[in-house]
Amino acid sequence: MTEQHKQTGSFITLEGGEGVGKSTNLAFIIDDLKNRGLSVVKTREPGGTPIAEQVRDLLLHHADEALDPTAELLLVFAARAQHLAQVIKPSLYAGKVVVSDRFTDASFAYQGAGRGLSITVLETLEKLVQQALQPDLTLLLDLPVADGMARVAKRGQSDRFEQQQHDFFERVRAGYLARARAFPDRFRIIDAAQPLVDVQQQIRQVLDEFFSK
Amino acid sequence: MTEQHKQTGSFITLEGGEGVGKSTNLAFIIDDLKNRGLSVVKTREPGGTPIAEQVRDLLLHHADEALDPTAELLLVFAARAQHLAQVIKPSLYAGKVVVSDRFTDASFAYQGAGRGLSITVLETLEKLVQQALQPDLTLLLDLPVADGMARVAKRGQSDRFEQQQHDFFERVRAGYLARARAFPDRFRIIDAAQPLVDVQQQIRQVLDEFFSK
Repeated sequence: MTEQHKQTGSFITLEGGEGVGKSTNLAFIIDDLKNRGLSVVKTREPGGTPIAEQVRDLLLHHADEALDPTAELLLVFAARAQHLAQVIKPSLYAGKVVVSDRFTDASFAYQGAGRGLSITVLETLEKLVQQALQPDLTLLLDLPVADGMARVAKRGQSDRFEQQQHDFFERVRAGYLARARAFPDRFRIIDAAQPLVDVQQQIRQVLDEFFSK
Repeated sequence: MTEQHKQTGSFITLEGGEGVGKSTNLAFIIDDLKNRGLSVVKTREPGGTPIAEQVRDLLLHHADEALDPTAELLLVFAARAQHLAQVIKPSLYAGKVVVSDRFTDASFAYQGAGRGLSITVLETLEKLVQQALQPDLTLLLDLPVADGMARVAKRGQSDRFEQQQHDFFERVRAGYLARARAFPDRFRIIDAAQPLVDVQQQIRQVLDEFFSK
């Protein structure tokens, strides 16, 4: 695929495990960016387009049939290819700021570190669907697993991913932190164990720094 | 993935472009195998499991949103991974004869030769989902494109693939024939331009040869 238009927007991703406060802080980020006068596109993975959301539905709700791990991985990347083609790339080319609730780092954390799928395979699929495209800024909300699980339990929420065990989430957290170490230029680790006001102050500082560049 | 059980069944695939008589001859093959006293599993791609059939539905019906070619390819292979895990491998391990209406050769013909997607990428995905597993026998129903299109027009049928143009189907046919040349041990080309009785006599001879080995 050739990139026919120069990319002019910014691609920001928000990552983190269960119970780290992703939804609350996503809303905060969107408001903050709008207050800066930016044209913002809020999206999420898996999903972000009608077809990709149908794939998300398949991923999260398939109680009657076990989903093969390789099939799951390919569905995630299929949804991502569609999301990139229909939403992310056109928005970036139009100069917008795209904020995605999760992106490929989540695949490395959940499918790679969490489920033990091959990192080489993940890198192959990443290159296939993204070519050279990467987020310009990735905010990783980091929290000890026990704290995140306690928050989730308090919400009474549960979905397929949240039914997994503690050890799995330890591997996910380690996977995210390994990605952050591997890509220090775009990753910013946010300490999600702080009081919310301090979390959001740290996020605002990261955004100030990013947009002052 | 380690193969924990020795494979004892046989994996037969039926391939071919539009209007070559795949449905009629698939029914003939199933009957022929049952008459040989074999335990037969009839299946198809994309599809073959509830999840994989939902993916098929996504592939064939998405009128409101253009499907990105890479997303399409990944969806096809996701459905295939699921089909292998849930139907094909367990059936082969149980000693059954699996007959699939299309398999990976169709990806090489349609997405590769037809749409021009990278053969290297296809081979990577093939290896990812199949490891060393390949059909034991592939029957390719071959017919000049104009003849196939005329048959389809007579049926009054049309779906997403059949709306494509003549040139596309010429590439698909050439792609299938290239696969047959590359894998002569498992491919048998059936001349689908013959009268049906002769097509089916040729198919029976191929099956006789296959099961006498």
